[in-house]
Amino acid sequence: MSTIEMPAAETPAATTAATSPAATTPATAATTEPAIDVAALGQQLMGRWADSRRASRALMRDSAFHRDPTLGMDEHRERVLGQLKLLVERGDVRHAFPAEFGGDDDFGGFIASFEELLLGDPSMQIKSGVQWGLYASAILHLGTAPHHAAWLPDALDLTTPGAFAMTETGHGSDVSAVGTTATYDAATDEWVIHTPFRAAWKDYLGNAALHGRAATVFAQLITRGVNHGVHAFYVPLRDETGAFLPGIGGEDDGLKGGLNGIDNGRLHFTNVRVPRTNLLNRYGDVDENGVYTSPIASPGRRFFTMLGTLVQGRVSLDGACVVASKLALTIAVRYGTERRQFVGGESDEVVLLDYQRHQRRLLPRLAQTYAMSFAHEVFLEKFDAVFSGASDTDADREDLETLAAALKSLSTWNALDIIQEAREACGGQGFLAANRLTQLRADLDIYATFEGDNNVLLQLVAKRLLTDHSRAFAKADAALMAHYVADQVGEAVVNRSGLRRLAQSVADAGSTARSVDSVRDTESQRQLLTDRVESMVAELAGKLRSASKLPKPQAAALFNRHQNALIETAKAHGELLQWEAFTDQLERVEHAGTRQVLTWLRDLFGLGLIEKNLDWYVIHGRLSDQRAQAITDYIDGRLLPRLRPHALALTDAFELADEHIRADIATGAERERQEEARAYYADQRARGLAPIDEKDLIAAKSARR
Amino acid sequence: MSTIEMPAAETPAATTAATSPAATTPATAATTEPAIDVAALGQQLMGRWADSRRASRALMRDSAFHRDPTLGMDEHRERVLGQLKLLVERGDVRHAFPAEFGGDDDFGGFIASFEELLLGDPSMQIKSGVQWGLYASAILHLGTAPHHAAWLPDALDLTTPGAFAMTETGHGSDVSAVGTTATYDAATDEWVIHTPFRAAWKDYLGNAALHGRAATVFAQLITRGVNHGVHAFYVPLRDETGAFLPGIGGEDDGLKGGLNGIDNGRLHFTNVRVPRTNLLNRYGDVDENGVYTSPIASPGRRFFTMLGTLVQGRVSLDGACVVASKLALTIAVRYGTERRQFVGGESDEVVLLDYQRHQRRLLPRLAQTYAMSFAHEVFLEKFDAVFSGASDTDADREDLETLAAALKSLSTWNALDIIQEAREACGGQGFLAANRLTQLRADLDIYATFEGDNNVLLQLVAKRLLTDHSRAFAKADAALMAHYVADQVGEAVVNRSGLRRLAQSVADAGSTARSVDSVRDTESQRQLLTDRVESMVAELAGKLRSASKLPKPQAAALFNRHQNALIETAKAHGELLQWEAFTDQLERVEHAGTRQVLTWLRDLFGLGLIEKNLDWYVIHGRLSDQRAQAITDYIDGRLLPRLRPHALALTDAFELADEHIRADIATGAERERQEEARAYYADQRARGLAPIDEKDLIAAKSARR
Repeated sequence: MSTIEMPAAETPAATTAATSPAATTPATAATTEPAIDVAALGQQLMGRWADSRRASRALMRDSAFHRDPTLGMDEHRERVLGQLKLLVERGDVRHAFPAEFGGDDDFGGFIASFEELLLGDPSMQIKSGVQWGLYASAILHLGTAPHHAAWLPDALDLTTPGAFAMTETGHGSDVSAVGTTATYDAATDEWVIHTPFRAAWKDYLGNAALHGRAATVFAQLITRGVNHGVHAFYVPLRDETGAFLPGIGGEDDGLKGGLNGIDNGRLHFTNVRVPRTNLLNRYGDVDENGVYTSPIASPGRRFFTMLGTLVQGRVSLDGACVVASKLALTIAVRYGTERRQFVGGESDEVVLLDYQRHQRRLLPRLAQTYAMSFAHEVFLEKFDAVFSGASDTDADREDLETLAAALKSLSTWNALDIIQEAREACGGQGFLAANRLTQLRADLDIYATFEGDNNVLLQLVAKRLLTDHSRAFAKADAALMAHYVADQVGEAVVNRSGLRRLAQSVADAGSTARSVDSVRDTESQRQLLTDRVESMVAELAGKLRSASKLPKPQAAALFNRHQNALIETAKAHGELLQWEAFTDQLERVEHAGTRQVLTWLRDLFGLGLIEKNLDWYVIHGRLSDQRAQAITDYIDGRLLPRLRPHALALTDAFELADEHIRADIATGAERERQEEARAYYADQRARGLAPIDEKDLIAAKSARR
Repeated sequence: MSTIEMPAAETPAATTAATSPAATTPATAATTEPAIDVAALGQQLMGRWADSRRASRALMRDSAFHRDPTLGMDEHRERVLGQLKLLVERGDVRHAFPAEFGGDDDFGGFIASFEELLLGDPSMQIKSGVQWGLYASAILHLGTAPHHAAWLPDALDLTTPGAFAMTETGHGSDVSAVGTTATYDAATDEWVIHTPFRAAWKDYLGNAALHGRAATVFAQLITRGVNHGVHAFYVPLRDETGAFLPGIGGEDDGLKGGLNGIDNGRLHFTNVRVPRTNLLNRYGDVDENGVYTSPIASPGRRFFTMLGTLVQGRVSLDGACVVASKLALTIAVRYGTERRQFVGGESDEVVLLDYQRHQRRLLPRLAQTYAMSFAHEVFLEKFDAVFSGASDTDADREDLETLAAALKSLSTWNALDIIQEAREACGGQGFLAANRLTQLRADLDIYATFEGDNNVLLQLVAKRLLTDHSRAFAKADAALMAHYVADQVGEAVVNRSGLRRLAQSVADAGSTARSVDSVRDTESQRQLLTDRVESMVAELAGKLRSASKLPKPQAAALFNRHQNALIETAKAHGELLQWEAFTDQLERVEHAGTRQVLTWLRDLFGLGLIEKNLDWYVIHGRLSDQRAQAITDYIDGRLLPRLRPHALALTDAFELADEHIRADIATGAERERQEEARAYYADQRARGLAPIDEKDLIAAKSARR
């Protein structure tokens, strides 16, 4: 607020002006070296399914698909339903479905085009996801040919809006424990669907409060006194007038923190009967006698396989977070290069992005967004390979699940962090609905806890890391094992005494530049990041090894004692995946200037990860004190000033049109205001109309004395 | 999502069950040792102005003051205006004003009662702040007796809703550069108020879009060709019908990310004339001849003094963040002790707060909230001392400004972090409007950037730290200086070679317990935290010392190169203030059990700060590797399990009634659902109706084979 008498600390002008003449001018290819080939970079970011993305983006320029922030919840829900109908007409919602239903089995393209719907309205994206990604996909993947023929056409053209009734009030991420039961009644050859208590009500279901006419209901399949675990059943919900069918009831979830264009609601079933053949029976079936059969003998593996078909939810959330992060940063970077605040060295005020702190806030998040974008492409390729059948082994599906758990968790949190920083970086302007950032954040908030709570998903990742680690051990012969143990011991000794770090210090001899030189190249970054993940896994494995010999409660307690470390380990693994994806893309860049700038950006990402966990690297003897400190200096003193002139171009490569951005401050209003104000003052000075500043008067007087 | 086959990693049961029988039961005084005296702790948290707070809280139990989440913006604004009228009738909005206007000069009580309004609706709190804390207070503090007599009565009883017209579209935190001018016209003895370009429009003003009838307008005071800097002017805005007066126009800011009960808007002035006496002239006046006089000769100090009267905005935001954090954590902790998820060691599922990760998410934030609450009390005492005149020197005002800048910045960010974690910890339930967390976060979002952008305020703090540091130097005699330099050099040598850390390692000899013992006591925490702040300041001072000898642009560039470090230093200082405030309160606790638990909580806060900056402590040789690692182990293995049984009691001490909480999941709904579900399964088992699990069947078969 008060800013007086602190010109130095508060008006830090363009540092970079002292080192690079281009830094204070908004970056354009003409004024900076190296330049970026924005078009080529844009194409690279678009990835393999660029055409699907571009088609979807073209559609999203139409205001019919845009969110109207003035609408209340009821009107917003109706608008979004209308947008889904428009998508059926003008969009391409059938890609992931077989040719007989109008599709072309293009799973990657389906997801890619779906992700871009976020630019219209996240509510529209998620309601589309409910209809085609969950409800219709459950029929496709969990049902068999008769189900497809009976229900897919109406699901695809939205004749039957459907709910995906998995989550219960009492059970979110723990699907295996849902309370709803489907009990086979051989007398009538029917399933009896029942929610025995309030916590077993299906909850949070899109399309349940208003529009849903049918649902795929997940329930414990019980026949002949045996519970065969969770299966999906097709259950009609409402009649033609929209009234609930007998035995079915529900509630509206009402207003939410975001995504209010979706009619989330609750459903309960009181002994609701559906034909035996309404069981979606691809992975488990029951005959007229109530005898259960399944192609997958293990109930655990069967459950895992069924839920695995739903991984596309996590794929598309990951991709949607990439799109949202690109949008938020485009707004904040544009505003940051136009908005001026506080007088700098010259009489003009300084643009925000010339302040080091502003760079520190936005540029690492720009690097994060590139990493997320490239990592998502890897994820989507894997998803497409599995679902198209091109590469669909058990191991592939397991890898896909792990990738999904790791990347969805990181990117949903990253997106919230990026949007929030973008909002704060735009100050009060960022809080106006007209500039969209707060609504974007509100809508994405739930992404962190739906389709699997991030903290739960990351434990899946950790478990996989531990399993891989123990497999490596199982295969290892005795000699290797002995070697490994010796290594471990040796390392412990070295670290404990600090000798390795000490040796590094001596070699570094205090030269910052050389210290950084030896850690900033690609291989050093890889080694540091990989080493940390491997060491964390090994350390955890050691601590948890005794669990297999303990009684269950004690084993569980042992795991709980390390739960936080498990999750942190999984995060480190996910970040490494992002870093690897970013690094792989560097080699595909042909344009020298682009490669240089992208390499700096990747360095900012990689060194940022190392900086964030600097304590680990120092404590574990991976970095000397000098090198550790040099990393921060290198980021502040080198990478940020180098990247600053390219910030605009790096967001231009996101290829967002004004109709996608739709934020006043990023589409011309701020620039106009700034130019008008500067012209006014220049004119006042030129015409001698500017008043004298009292401070100058005092200074002049005291000089005369 | 899929949870199968990972009982160990995913269902980590009650760790603490293994070490403490009480840990899995929700804490009550009866079942745990030591017990907390909740009532006494509650009284301590209420602080010196407990009566004002309790009166305000009593009022806030009335649903007339509660936010109705179903209202659209227009209705919400009207409701909040109505609530302000109710406050005039039933509340106590005049405390901070003199007796002749119905007040009792009770500044602390005024702010304390005002902060608690957040429990009704943050929009109501902030709109009250606009009316009484800004508009009326500007008349009181910047005006003189005739102004008070003329305008205060109508301001206080809301006959004249008023706007506080300081911020401009083009200038947020940089008030000294506003573009609006007030030029004295001696011919008519009037001020001409004018906004010369779009960026100079007053913006974001509560009461401006609809309800405001007058405004205190901040403009550059120009008379006889000299600009005397920013002053405030009383300007009528609208006539009795609500129409703008001649020359005045405006726009509605429209929908915002939150606080939509306030009619924020923009105002522009085209040569609007007001009498000369409408200048609020306490700190600067102009006579009929246009001659300017001021009791404060320095324009800089004058500006600082005028803005200093507005510090109460920052005081009350800090306090509001404390209230909001208490509310959010009460909801999340209650839910965390009732909600069960994933089967644990026994057949019942585990309550969330028995998971280590859940403890890691909520308990440090509970510690943070206590620290914020106690630090706010120090802040409020200081504010009251200055404004009541009890202790109102220049140095006091300067201290108050620094405290305001440091604590407002930290607590606004802390509150957003706490509310968000609380929301995620409640999963999808946390996203429902009925459970209030998302709206609370949305409303508080803007707190981080209004009343001074946090990043700007923290630079004020850093500047003060640097000034104090250089003052200490100026006073130091040569011998002291030499001693200091030697110390510095000595330390650098020791750190550089890692010798100090090495010595510590040897002494620690690998014993975790002893390692932690030596850093966990109060004095060690204080030393570590203080040492870090002082070292950071000294290091910065060294790097910035040459600035005074550089030309202005180069000096600014030098500061900019360390802007991020400046801000991080200020944060460290603010955190130390919070820690000191928390520690001071420990000594005031009489009840032994409460003192023990609060000490653990303070340790969690202090060691958490050290853990967060562990890289600094290790790199700078303050902690050995062993001690550094032991801190995390101590938090996870000791502090969290010790505090877990007291989590509920620690939130009970916040004394929030169900009418304040108003979140279904924290006021009984979740508990009922859980009890019903458990009763159902128990009954099924008892009556032999539970189906056999297929997995058990398989296990039994394979055992028979």
